[in-house]
Amino acid sequence: MADRYFDDFEIGERVVTPGITLTESLIIDFAMRYDPQPFHIDAEAAKQSNYGGLIASGFQTFALGFRMVLETGVFRACSMGSPGCDELRWLRPVRPGDTLHTELEVAEKTPSRSKPDRGMLKIKYWVKNQRGEDVMTFTSMHMARRKTQ
Amino acid sequence: MADRYFDDFEIGERVVTPGITLTESLIIDFAMRYDPQPFHIDAEAAKQSNYGGLIASGFQTFALGFRMVLETGVFRACSMGSPGCDELRWLRPVRPGDTLHTELEVAEKTPSRSKPDRGMLKIKYWVKNQRGEDVMTFTSMHMARRKTQ
Repeated sequence: MADRYFDDFEIGERVVTPGITLTESLIIDFAMRYDPQPFHIDAEAAKQSNYGGLIASGFQTFALGFRMVLETGVFRACSMGSPGCDELRWLRPVRPGDTLHTELEVAEKTPSRSKPDRGMLKIKYWVKNQRGEDVMTFTSMHMARRKTQ
Repeated sequence: MADRYFDDFEIGERVVTPGITLTESLIIDFAMRYDPQPFHIDAEAAKQSNYGGLIASGFQTFALGFRMVLETGVFRACSMGSPGCDELRWLRPVRPGDTLHTELEVAEKTPSRSKPDRGMLKIKYWVKNQRGEDVMTFTSMHMARRKTQ
């Protein structure tokens, strides 16, 4: 993907990422460090939980969902970080062997009034599994660099 | 901390966690896998960025912020996962060597109407650095098990 800047994003534009398969090892490895709850790290305890088996940490689904977007290169040239996200929803469990991908849609774009080198993008995200079911949705704000003339 | 259930949480109650120091290695290690943007993985490129140096991925601050809460044991007995979070705000950069801790306050609690074994807690979180500055805030919903009689 060619380098993109704030000015190149169009409202309503959609991007679909390639996928990543989330293995049991990746789920446990992440959760041991960042979210060591029994249903994320202990396959036996997870069977007895309300999820009926091991599921990925929602923090991992969130980070991985965005990682796949970075892979497309859409933010490579313009990313200046994010002030925040809204409406994170974990809609379905992510289980070992599930293959996730992310779809995004540009919802709003607002040039900065005080800093002419940047603008704010509001983007909606859907993280989906191999059956096309939404496993997570969220909205994120992105500070994006403008093209220098 | 003794095992706690939905019924034990009181609105307005606050919990303060112990801290974790986020080293440069931890920042780069996380970001290489989950958020490989130059200002998270490349100390030299980060100097040229709008942050003026390496900063932690916001996904890492978010996960670590909650990890420190898990360490207190407050959710050990009752956690049944989360349907979502709202109003994530990354307020200040987290830099190598910063020591973070989390403070939480119980905002709302709602027993489930359909499932008598659980209720929903709404909790506000502040992740703070060693100067007591908020680096991140968010609100999370938690499905919590009720005490069985």
